[in-house]
Amino acid sequence: MSDIEIAQQATMQDVSLLAQQRLGLKAEQLDSYGRYKAKLSLDVMQSLADRPDGKLILVTAISPTPAGEGKTTTTIGLSDALNRIGKQSIVCMREPSMGPCFGMKGGAAGGGYAQVVPMEDINLHFTGDFHAIASAHNLLAAMIDNHIHHGNGLQLDTRKIVWQRVMDMNDRALRQITVGMGGVANGFVREDRFDIVVASEVMAIFCLSASLSELKQRLGDILIGYSFDGVPRFARDLKAEGAMAALLKEALKPNLVQTLENNPAFVHGGPFANIAHGCNSVISTKMALKLSDYVVTEAGFGADLGAEKFINIKCRKSGLRPDLAVVVATVKALKYHGGVEVSALATENLQALEQGMTNLQRHLDNLQRHFGLECVVAINHFVQDSDAEIELVKSRVEAMGARAIVARHWAEGGAGAETLARTVIEKLESPKTTARLLYPDETSLWEKISHVAKDLYRATSVEADAKLKAKIQGLEEEYGHLPVCMAKTPYSFSSDPALRGAPEEHSLTIRDIRLSRGAGFLVVLCGDVMTMPGLPRHPASERIDIDDAGVISGLF
Amino acid sequence: MSDIEIAQQATMQDVSLLAQQRLGLKAEQLDSYGRYKAKLSLDVMQSLADRPDGKLILVTAISPTPAGEGKTTTTIGLSDALNRIGKQSIVCMREPSMGPCFGMKGGAAGGGYAQVVPMEDINLHFTGDFHAIASAHNLLAAMIDNHIHHGNGLQLDTRKIVWQRVMDMNDRALRQITVGMGGVANGFVREDRFDIVVASEVMAIFCLSASLSELKQRLGDILIGYSFDGVPRFARDLKAEGAMAALLKEALKPNLVQTLENNPAFVHGGPFANIAHGCNSVISTKMALKLSDYVVTEAGFGADLGAEKFINIKCRKSGLRPDLAVVVATVKALKYHGGVEVSALATENLQALEQGMTNLQRHLDNLQRHFGLECVVAINHFVQDSDAEIELVKSRVEAMGARAIVARHWAEGGAGAETLARTVIEKLESPKTTARLLYPDETSLWEKISHVAKDLYRATSVEADAKLKAKIQGLEEEYGHLPVCMAKTPYSFSSDPALRGAPEEHSLTIRDIRLSRGAGFLVVLCGDVMTMPGLPRHPASERIDIDDAGVISGLF
Repeated sequence: MSDIEIAQQATMQDVSLLAQQRLGLKAEQLDSYGRYKAKLSLDVMQSLADRPDGKLILVTAISPTPAGEGKTTTTIGLSDALNRIGKQSIVCMREPSMGPCFGMKGGAAGGGYAQVVPMEDINLHFTGDFHAIASAHNLLAAMIDNHIHHGNGLQLDTRKIVWQRVMDMNDRALRQITVGMGGVANGFVREDRFDIVVASEVMAIFCLSASLSELKQRLGDILIGYSFDGVPRFARDLKAEGAMAALLKEALKPNLVQTLENNPAFVHGGPFANIAHGCNSVISTKMALKLSDYVVTEAGFGADLGAEKFINIKCRKSGLRPDLAVVVATVKALKYHGGVEVSALATENLQALEQGMTNLQRHLDNLQRHFGLECVVAINHFVQDSDAEIELVKSRVEAMGARAIVARHWAEGGAGAETLARTVIEKLESPKTTARLLYPDETSLWEKISHVAKDLYRATSVEADAKLKAKIQGLEEEYGHLPVCMAKTPYSFSSDPALRGAPEEHSLTIRDIRLSRGAGFLVVLCGDVMTMPGLPRHPASERIDIDDAGVISGLF
Repeated sequence: MSDIEIAQQATMQDVSLLAQQRLGLKAEQLDSYGRYKAKLSLDVMQSLADRPDGKLILVTAISPTPAGEGKTTTTIGLSDALNRIGKQSIVCMREPSMGPCFGMKGGAAGGGYAQVVPMEDINLHFTGDFHAIASAHNLLAAMIDNHIHHGNGLQLDTRKIVWQRVMDMNDRALRQITVGMGGVANGFVREDRFDIVVASEVMAIFCLSASLSELKQRLGDILIGYSFDGVPRFARDLKAEGAMAALLKEALKPNLVQTLENNPAFVHGGPFANIAHGCNSVISTKMALKLSDYVVTEAGFGADLGAEKFINIKCRKSGLRPDLAVVVATVKALKYHGGVEVSALATENLQALEQGMTNLQRHLDNLQRHFGLECVVAINHFVQDSDAEIELVKSRVEAMGARAIVARHWAEGGAGAETLARTVIEKLESPKTTARLLYPDETSLWEKISHVAKDLYRATSVEADAKLKAKIQGLEEEYGHLPVCMAKTPYSFSSDPALRGAPEEHSLTIRDIRLSRGAGFLVVLCGDVMTMPGLPRHPASERIDIDDAGVISGLF
């Protein structure tokens, strides 16, 4: 059965009952959006201020292959398994972006028997959060061009506007555009672009704000461009932040849905994992920790990017600290890192596996040594995996001082991840250190970049041309206290996606640095980043359909 | 108090109770969106198929002044008044467009004590319908450029693409743009534009479709452009209609909210009143008629445009027929039509009023004579109106065979419109003719245009250049059976907005004709039509704010 067929056969529980029975919430603390989706009032945080936080489990992964390693399914499966063995657990995930549903990959709400539902709703519009974020973003864009049109009091240089427009669509034709054409009534002609909504700085701000007031503050802080004299101009200069925050009022409330096994799931916010930090909202993680003994969450890409940003950006700004990391690996991907071609991954190959283990080992070492995080490895099981391969992974992981557990949640749901869940509980009950940041705020920007590059990527050096070094130096005084957000390929520890495994002797070349002033980080670009995807030759939208009874098909 | 302050002081009833107690719906027939908004299941129609329809009251108006004549407030106030005098009534309105909220006018959910609530939600995002319509529209646009990029099997001529993009924002910079710049990876460069969402053909289709299957059919029928050989290409040729309809699945369900007096209000769909037909959705009007004895609805602009399209387009396609028309007039606007300048409208001026009455008289004559509609005139009361002025209007209307009733709903809510409500009931209970269409389907396009121009506008002739006449002739064979949708200034019966009152001896010049093939009408352009508004020098978005408790201000 396809993912959508499995999802459509789920027997869902009424979301208000779920909220009352499983989370102890009162009816007035939630707004239902239909019978199976709800938004939780921000007042919940105040009413539970005295309650201790639950344990936070971060699901991360080895360096992914283009097929993905099953981080989202493991996150859902582990939470279901924890609930199965009698623990109270909430899964905290990102909201899927709608645009890519019409392209190659279809939905992004888990897969197999580890999904969150209602799957179609979560993938299409959901509770409207991304539309609200797009509206807030594009209102600021409209106000910028409107300001220039009506006399340009701020003396904005149209060549130096850094705020673009966004749409939740894979639409390559909007990557580079000219706006304001057609004469005086339409404003001044200038170059512009559309990014996909998940790449919006408003999305990053939304996910890092712990309250409505922090949200408004950060929105006002957004850099929109520079005057003819080079003076930076902010959203606040246009008085845009109040209306932008008003547009985000409902969106900021965490979304409650459920897994296929009727366990609570918070699906809220979804920033890009390259030019942003790639985690669900701070507000939903914090609320889940107040409402549950265990919270299972994930961060985008492999641990070199996802876990690093989760800790150095999300945790730094929110005060959150994970209690444990679960590192997802597949035998297939480890063989891929050992040099096997994609076409041969289904065949047993212990030698390649042994070689590919270097990738997992380096991630484990990073998490344990540099972040002080205890780790459990989850081997996301495929039918082609041989017993010998599984045993090899287990023994090598054990040699690293960790344990590797086979998880079959994709095929079996929570039941397939019970051993993983028990191991996680065991680890959490033994004494442990507190997770730590990789660098303090006061470290210089260049040193922050170097820490990530040398400690985690194991680069021998960091390179940048003189102009870029001067730019970084120029940002130091005012923004030197901010963390860096690395935009690097997820497929390798290095900036070259072809270097699999655990490359040595590589150097990290920085291409550019950009200020996300409202979000409060500096994006360090280590290669090309695509902020507006395109559709393939035969997009999924050709197959997606709805019948007269309203049943959707073709959304994988 | 401002509109938003009045709205925020309303004591709203839980929407599921409203649905159960006032409409007799079962809990499973609605999806709540928070406590005060709900979407009603389309199954309601099947379950009530045998129930007779209620009476349909169309609220229309004289030719408006730029200030507006209070059609929306009268629609709400009349429905509240009907409920006050013991009748069961639902008001059916259009959804406001979000973009203009940030410009000049603020919200569009009524005003004073005749509003629908929750006002902020209805104005901002509401239940996401417009976002869904924008997504469906822009998906088709992305699929068009994607098709061209990947080999252009349909041989689409990029100079002849007629499908643009949309955004729910007042953003003049997007009126004329160039897309696809930046090289091979970004597709082919071509000119394009963004319209505001209410101008989307998807919006018109959405509002004219009585079912999901009709919606999908109409979406597939959309004309997207022409091949190099001049062959028309449709959304169906790209297999886009299934995914577009899937995106509109939830949106198509009517939205239930309430008036300030806790009476049920259906607020659903909102197409432009110039290049589209300007009425709320057929689906919501039909459902309201099954659920209530009386349904009060409105159509955009004055009766020459709004009522004409309501009958010739919405009624023609849906089988609906209004039982009565309420024609809204203000003493101010009548004096304006009598030649008084805007600055002097507060002063009594019986002579100008007498002269301006010609405008009301012509609208009444049109409605009675050409559409067979009984009329009641509602004088939307302003404190500056003198008794003598009111009496003059009343006596002149009586001479036309109708009655004029003063309505004070803006200041007094439903209580202020009770006399109007009683008069409406009286009229509905006396024998009447059935409303009729102005022309049958088989009339030629040119004759349809002539009928509207000569019968209603009282133009002496209709003019078009030879090229346009040939274009109309060319459309005749395939599309001659469709109704015409006139895009003309609302400020005058003629195409010259400066000709107030009831101009004689004017000629209607047609500038262009455009096919809305999915919606099923031909737009006849009688002047410039702005399909993407701009923001003013100091937009409302500078004043809109939200406090830490989530209370929005500045949204009038």
